[in-house]
Amino acid sequence: MLQPILIDGAWRQAEATGTFTAFNPATGAPLPEQYPISGLADIEQALLAAQQAVKKMRFVPVEAIAHFLETFAGAIEARSEALVEMAAQETGLPGVPRLRNVELPRTTDQLRQAAAAVRERSWCQATLDTTHNIRAKYSPLNGPVVVLGPSNFPFAFNSIAGGDFAAALAVGNPVIAKAHPGHPATTRLLAEAAFEALQRSSLPAGMVQMLYHMSQQDGLTLVSHPLVGATAFVGSRAAGLRLKQAAEEAGKPIYVEMSSINPVVILPNALEERLPQIVNEFCTSALSATGQFCTNPGLVIMVAGPLSEQFLERAASAFQATPPGFLFHEDSPRRLATAVTSLQQCNARVITGGQQLEGPGYRFENTLLSVSGDHFLQQSSKLQEEAFGNVSLIVLASNQAQLLEIIERLEGNLTGTIYDHSAGLDDPLYEELEPLLQAKVGRLLNNKMPTGVAVSPAMMHGGPFPASGHLGFTGVGIPASLLRFAARRCYENIPTRHLPAELREKNPTGQTWRLIDGEWTQRDL
Amino acid sequence: MLQPILIDGAWRQAEATGTFTAFNPATGAPLPEQYPISGLADIEQALLAAQQAVKKMRFVPVEAIAHFLETFAGAIEARSEALVEMAAQETGLPGVPRLRNVELPRTTDQLRQAAAAVRERSWCQATLDTTHNIRAKYSPLNGPVVVLGPSNFPFAFNSIAGGDFAAALAVGNPVIAKAHPGHPATTRLLAEAAFEALQRSSLPAGMVQMLYHMSQQDGLTLVSHPLVGATAFVGSRAAGLRLKQAAEEAGKPIYVEMSSINPVVILPNALEERLPQIVNEFCTSALSATGQFCTNPGLVIMVAGPLSEQFLERAASAFQATPPGFLFHEDSPRRLATAVTSLQQCNARVITGGQQLEGPGYRFENTLLSVSGDHFLQQSSKLQEEAFGNVSLIVLASNQAQLLEIIERLEGNLTGTIYDHSAGLDDPLYEELEPLLQAKVGRLLNNKMPTGVAVSPAMMHGGPFPASGHLGFTGVGIPASLLRFAARRCYENIPTRHLPAELREKNPTGQTWRLIDGEWTQRDL
Repeated sequence: MLQPILIDGAWRQAEATGTFTAFNPATGAPLPEQYPISGLADIEQALLAAQQAVKKMRFVPVEAIAHFLETFAGAIEARSEALVEMAAQETGLPGVPRLRNVELPRTTDQLRQAAAAVRERSWCQATLDTTHNIRAKYSPLNGPVVVLGPSNFPFAFNSIAGGDFAAALAVGNPVIAKAHPGHPATTRLLAEAAFEALQRSSLPAGMVQMLYHMSQQDGLTLVSHPLVGATAFVGSRAAGLRLKQAAEEAGKPIYVEMSSINPVVILPNALEERLPQIVNEFCTSALSATGQFCTNPGLVIMVAGPLSEQFLERAASAFQATPPGFLFHEDSPRRLATAVTSLQQCNARVITGGQQLEGPGYRFENTLLSVSGDHFLQQSSKLQEEAFGNVSLIVLASNQAQLLEIIERLEGNLTGTIYDHSAGLDDPLYEELEPLLQAKVGRLLNNKMPTGVAVSPAMMHGGPFPASGHLGFTGVGIPASLLRFAARRCYENIPTRHLPAELREKNPTGQTWRLIDGEWTQRDL
Repeated sequence: MLQPILIDGAWRQAEATGTFTAFNPATGAPLPEQYPISGLADIEQALLAAQQAVKKMRFVPVEAIAHFLETFAGAIEARSEALVEMAAQETGLPGVPRLRNVELPRTTDQLRQAAAAVRERSWCQATLDTTHNIRAKYSPLNGPVVVLGPSNFPFAFNSIAGGDFAAALAVGNPVIAKAHPGHPATTRLLAEAAFEALQRSSLPAGMVQMLYHMSQQDGLTLVSHPLVGATAFVGSRAAGLRLKQAAEEAGKPIYVEMSSINPVVILPNALEERLPQIVNEFCTSALSATGQFCTNPGLVIMVAGPLSEQFLERAASAFQATPPGFLFHEDSPRRLATAVTSLQQCNARVITGGQQLEGPGYRFENTLLSVSGDHFLQQSSKLQEEAFGNVSLIVLASNQAQLLEIIERLEGNLTGTIYDHSAGLDDPLYEELEPLLQAKVGRLLNNKMPTGVAVSPAMMHGGPFPASGHLGFTGVGIPASLLRFAARRCYENIPTRHLPAELREKNPTGQTWRLIDGEWTQRDL
């Protein structure tokens, strides 16, 4: 018996074109449930239901969206034990503290932040020009948002509960979620929670739908379909580029978050000042979740010398002393082995690790490599290929000038980090380096590893291509992340009775920030 | 002797791969100057100079950008007579009032509004989260903006003086402008004014560059070049789609404004109430600039009946009584003839006009067609092909239900307009119709023709694909239009001395609006 999919307010059997099973990464054993691979028939049903939802949403107050998001957060909490257990089984991530104490609260917090943004309404940046009687705001798209979630956050980036889901729904768009095939049962539990919340809300049935899987070709058809509003994707570069091309050729917005190796530059006086502390921070960040973070520090850059040797030694010891965690996929260890071989072919040297581990479970040795700045500059492109997992590469520049040259060769990344001396001894180098690094990243950090991604209005989770597809948008942070799924709609000479509430003379909540004649204000017009 | 191009702070001879000449649309006579078609050598020089400008801009205060924009506006005014005369010659547009009294002041006003936005700094939406010590703002891209301007606004959308130029530069990006080949001498005069202002500023030489023309292939190479920051294009759908594909495959942002027929829906009680007035407004809007506006009302929709017959008669009389204006290009009359034939093949009937006019000068009869709603629904796609010029099509729906069906078949447009009864007698139909029309347009108007596009913070000049490429951005309106050419850059845990001024504790101007912990404020942190 195949697990049912959630379409148009009902759990129903898919018109499956195939089936799949998930595996426990800690044992390599298949999990019991069978899941359908949906074909075009399911996709079209979901699209039609979403189209109906768009029409019905014109008459649904935004309060209902906020209520749904909060009820959903509560329904997740009510299932937290089952969710944590299932996600641990499907991903090999530690139930405690990671899943229970970090990722699950982050997920419900995100849903509640989205609900608060919906209620407060400032996210839509209502802009009123009284001289011309022109008013504009961000509004829902006219079609569903397709969310394609990644393997590495079974809750917080899940296609039916994560940041993209929350942002798309908060704007008022229906969501068509596609589960990551690595954790279908976790996704099913979340979809059950969402469905329960949906039934307890006044939102139309087509607002929240979920499919487990589809062929690559059907995925391309979906994201470029005339009825689609936009797509959000987090995953591999190859898949992201395919989806991006298909959607853009059809004139459909798509937000892709792809690869990133998150360069960390450690300046000489910082090494001098507090080498052991920085090694600790690096190793914790690099090995956390077995290195399977979008913002994992995969590339560390410093000037070669006795201190860099000491850094390598200490980091190697820490890498050896830490038990290698599980990787998500059966293929992951082999892929890391291939990546390490490729780095070696570019003259990188394995400092520690480098080998697949025997089963059961999908594991690879915690692996540290180093390469000279000269060699990096010779093959900078191949040496920047992402090795998604517990593998980091240290680049040893021959001097400060070469360090700058290395930064200039970096591709687009989500983050870039500079460690410097606490009393400013590295300032002259920092000032030369910062603009070069800034140009290559979306988020710049100082003396802090990049693996924490706070859900903050000021967060930027995106970066120059190919880290992501558009530098003006963030995938994390409320309300900023909502703008990806909004259309700017403008009203000229429209009488008040025909205007949306946010653009009328009266402030819709008394609290909504609006830009009236160049001034941000909470007052009525 | 070929006219020189403006590269890296100097007027120099192009490495031309060909030459071209402009024509006077009012006489069909070639104008005297010869202009170069630039090849890749010129393009690469411009890109390298722009790259240098990006580096130098790190040390240039934003005040210098504002000063340049204002000096440039003054330099345009100082040349206004020559500009108006030349633009009239190259475009056939009336010097007075259009070029001198409307478009030129609009252009200088736009430059000054951009300067004010630069000084005020609120456009960059500085966002500070004190809990997490994360701060973000919109910042320059890391490469030049390529601006490809249209034929129909020789000043206000000119690649080296218009809205895209002003917006890209205000953000702090270099601009590489490509003249429209219809008005190269006007563009040269504007570039001379820009160059004079550049020399009187402290901006780097590569901030403002201008080429006259390039091959289609070289254009694709330019917009997808690794050194490019983004592209803005206003023009035909065919060219826009080609450029969009090339840029997006390379991961480069591109903003295209393509075709739009700007549906105007006239509701029954509005016809009953004030038919003659609406006919006047329609005819003035439809024939202004010989219909060569992006927001020209090319499609009018109403319910068939005695009043619609009267509308057609009166509009036909007005079309006949108005002397046909000039069209921009030698090919324009033939293109309009082809478009009219194509509409006729879809059962549209010519009410008046329909023929090319004898020279000298490029002209076509003011042309009005009508088609039944039944026929429209049968071939709605072909009946929506843009006829850029003085041709409008009236769709006569058999009843209100069919009128709604017609709206649902519309493609993406820049604008949509509803005329209704002044005392609300049309409200029930308005309320049914509005969401359908809203979904197809960027800007909705009531009882006002769409041809005025105010430079307002609330303006939306963009619409669902294929009217433009991304519904979240506007091509007109300051500061909103600046965001197309900005990257969202984020700073986590960065000490004040390393932060950009807009993100420091102290408000950089005392007047800048910043979003601090969810509150828009002008205060210091």
